[in-house]
Amino acid sequence: MPSKYRDFRNSVPWLILFWEVVFIFLFYYLFSVVGLITPDFFDPAFQDVSHMVVFGLGFFLSFPKRYGLSGIGFNLLIVALGVQWSVLVEGFTCSGIFFSSFFSYSIMKAAVSVTAVVISFAAILGKANPVQLVVMTIVEIAAFHLSRWINKKYLEITDFASMMHVHLFGAYFGLAVSSSFPVLQPDFEKSARSPRSSLLSMLGTLFLWVFWPSFNSVLAVERKNDIIYSTYFGLAVSAVTAFALSVLTTKDGKLSMAHIHRATLAGGVTLGCAADSIRYPWIAMILGLLATVIAILGSHFLQRSLPSTIKINDVSGVHFTFGLPAVLGALACIILRVI
Amino acid sequence: MPSKYRDFRNSVPWLILFWEVVFIFLFYYLFSVVGLITPDFFDPAFQDVSHMVVFGLGFFLSFPKRYGLSGIGFNLLIVALGVQWSVLVEGFTCSGIFFSSFFSYSIMKAAVSVTAVVISFAAILGKANPVQLVVMTIVEIAAFHLSRWINKKYLEITDFASMMHVHLFGAYFGLAVSSSFPVLQPDFEKSARSPRSSLLSMLGTLFLWVFWPSFNSVLAVERKNDIIYSTYFGLAVSAVTAFALSVLTTKDGKLSMAHIHRATLAGGVTLGCAADSIRYPWIAMILGLLATVIAILGSHFLQRSLPSTIKINDVSGVHFTFGLPAVLGALACIILRVI
Amino acid sequence: MPSKYRDFRNSVPWLILFWEVVFIFLFYYLFSVVGLITPDFFDPAFQDVSHMVVFGLGFFLSFPKRYGLSGIGFNLLIVALGVQWSVLVEGFTCSGIFFSSFFSYSIMKAAVSVTAVVISFAAILGKANPVQLVVMTIVEIAAFHLSRWINKKYLEITDFASMMHVHLFGAYFGLAVSSSFPVLQPDFEKSARSPRSSLLSMLGTLFLWVFWPSFNSVLAVERKNDIIYSTYFGLAVSAVTAFALSVLTTKDGKLSMAHIHRATLAGGVTLGCAADSIRYPWIAMILGLLATVIAILGSHFLQRSLPSTIKINDVSGVHFTFGLPAVLGALACIILRVI
Repeated sequence: MPSKYRDFRNSVPWLILFWEVVFIFLFYYLFSVVGLITPDFFDPAFQDVSHMVVFGLGFFLSFPKRYGLSGIGFNLLIVALGVQWSVLVEGFTCSGIFFSSFFSYSIMKAAVSVTAVVISFAAILGKANPVQLVVMTIVEIAAFHLSRWINKKYLEITDFASMMHVHLFGAYFGLAVSSSFPVLQPDFEKSARSPRSSLLSMLGTLFLWVFWPSFNSVLAVERKNDIIYSTYFGLAVSAVTAFALSVLTTKDGKLSMAHIHRATLAGGVTLGCAADSIRYPWIAMILGLLATVIAILGSHFLQRSLPSTIKINDVSGVHFTFGLPAVLGALACIILRVI
Repeated sequence: MPSKYRDFRNSVPWLILFWEVVFIFLFYYLFSVVGLITPDFFDPAFQDVSHMVVFGLGFFLSFPKRYGLSGIGFNLLIVALGVQWSVLVEGFTCSGIFFSSFFSYSIMKAAVSVTAVVISFAAILGKANPVQLVVMTIVEIAAFHLSRWINKKYLEITDFASMMHVHLFGAYFGLAVSSSFPVLQPDFEKSARSPRSSLLSMLGTLFLWVFWPSFNSVLAVERKNDIIYSTYFGLAVSAVTAFALSVLTTKDGKLSMAHIHRATLAGGVTLGCAADSIRYPWIAMILGLLATVIAILGSHFLQRSLPSTIKINDVSGVHFTFGLPAVLGALACIILRVI
Repeated sequence: MPSKYRDFRNSVPWLILFWEVVFIFLFYYLFSVVGLITPDFFDPAFQDVSHMVVFGLGFFLSFPKRYGLSGIGFNLLIVALGVQWSVLVEGFTCSGIFFSSFFSYSIMKAAVSVTAVVISFAAILGKANPVQLVVMTIVEIAAFHLSRWINKKYLEITDFASMMHVHLFGAYFGLAVSSSFPVLQPDFEKSARSPRSSLLSMLGTLFLWVFWPSFNSVLAVERKNDIIYSTYFGLAVSAVTAFALSVLTTKDGKLSMAHIHRATLAGGVTLGCAADSIRYPWIAMILGLLATVIAILGSHFLQRSLPSTIKINDVSGVHFTFGLPAVLGALACIILRVI
């Protein structure tokens, strides 16, 4: 392993620098006409999303005892690369016509898009090397924008809704990538937790809990406040339900911090997909409850049977934390719109 | 202890789920007419308060070495349950007439109200079991709204001032509850500190220090900025005074982190009660100084004599951190208004 | 050492209390006419800057294993004292005429000014005692305001640009102070890092990364958004470049967290000086790249040769993290303005 790792010294930095130079050149080429003269409006929620992606998800991914610092570091690398690339891809697809207000909005979309890569990263945490992470970032951002373009063109989904499928896309892209890696041993040291790493992961989770309403609402053009409060109530119910189910499902009746992490995120993901269709708080609360039930009971009963059958080793429980809750949210969105 | 704890498996989750289902039903019953169509105004300070309560107080309560993770977890449970319940109680007392702007404001009030329960939780940290915490949350939120109703009706206190008594109420409610528990041994392991837990507690304290101006001003309808800057200067003086007094009162002349924690909060609490009556920054600064003197000298000279006399074992020094500074703030408010 | 430290018990608290009483008296004298009646406008970025200085820089300075808690604590003391003193100095120099809008803006300037003292503190981390820190805070804030006055009067620099030299001033003031202390041994325990302290320092770094755009833009009166997005892109390129260079320069090809810390800050510092002259994102990106190259390669090749020659022992690499990137930013600013 060490000798193999030392070989990266020749490839990793040059690959990263190559992409960075390409990005700067493309920015020069694409954004030199319009410049930065953005309108004098700044949404403070942009900072919240940035905080959530860099800080919240970074510390959320720090739960493995031996991999904490690397998880946070690589998360920063993915976000920094992904945001630049996402702004560029968004720029290409708008065929060269740039307005200053587009630029401002496009950076917020980039900050949300990059969440897909971070979720996929969670699925292969401790398995992938830096070169693979850089390549995955480039490919996944492009694929996500392609999928959004298809969604908008053929399924007539709004731009906002297509962005909110970011968790769904990230989770299943990550699981697909994960299936091409060898299955890790359950007692593999890199995925072991310690009380200290759990505490830092809790720190990340609380950040996500607090900022999730901003995340779900930042790209909305109307009913922003309804989305904020729906998400807030949904998350509250998720957290409460997670405590109850955690005590019910663990062997010794103690709280499992992994459950709290998953449930909190599950509620936020479901409401991300559904929040703009919700008219009453009680609907958001029921969705928050169902999301937690899926995330905790799903991982409790199905997790162990998955790897042997479809050979996907889901390191961080991405399928139950992001995948299924996003499907629930999308279903709820369709049902609510029909009604 | 373990066999007793295992019995909770049968009661804790079902109690929590029972309340959650009741809450969803009441939300359906109370808030189905108005829906969520809130006005398109969102105060970013709401996020700050949410951050402060969930994150700041959570980590502030993580100082016991053996109880850190549970402290943070139970804090989240209390906040998630308490916010829902507080919105409902506020809804009952307004006799069924709901306006959308009411809803938005009511959620902010709920986020402030729940601080009372967290402060009470600090007084019984490590003593209460989850069932007792859930029951306390339900009872205390109802009692707090009742006390506010009495304050407004008979003492003709403004709605804003009645909310700002949240620290006073929380501290003495917590001490009253604490007196019904057996007194913990001073060397009880759950209240022991370690350098690491002190560091995380410091993290929570710094969060509280930064966000306290938002907390004090979020519910104000006028002179919001004056309250923000008064609180800011008061907290600055509190922090400076705490350093001086800490070196004076500890045996070896070293900084005690517990003093920094307490003093910071004391300044914020005092100014919470008094800030809307303050016209000049120097008044806020003097109040910040006095609050710290009470919090540090009070705990230094009186703490040890308390448990034996009035049988209240104040685990986290709630009396000197929240109780007396809130009394000071209330007195200052009356004196300033008379002048 | 202990006997010497115990002597401070007689001087530290009284010195701090003396200054605090002087401050309150000066506030009474200077700000009693205008009071606090500030206009009803509050920039949420003020909170971000406060967060960044108290929390981000505090934890950033916690990297030494044996000095973490003290670093965070003294940082709070410096900020709390420095902000009050800076508002007062700003008040003196405006010769007694106070407008309420002045007061509000002056507090934001104070929060930015105090960064200079924190940067200087980083240069003497673990060397100075509390008395020296308090004296340095008082002297440095006064010197910084004097230097700004000279800049504005004789170099005809705008008020905003003179504030943005805060990093430059702080770094070289700190190095000058540092040169009067004895050189620490390289294996001195107070400057040793541990994995745990690196993780907390990373926490501080991520905070700085997220809030730096607010810091650079908070005092700007026009083109605020352009500064925010320029800084954001510059920081993204800095972070990416830091990963590449870190792998290239460390012996075993592993990521060095110290590199990530420095590079992130270097990008923010350079753009702080230059951001208001930047019209296109690619310029910000190139500056971010250059800042990181200076910070990492500079410390890699020159760090070891410095102490023996000019007898400055730069504990935290302040010269390469704040000094040179600020020079780069100032040069870029001049070149961009000429073009």
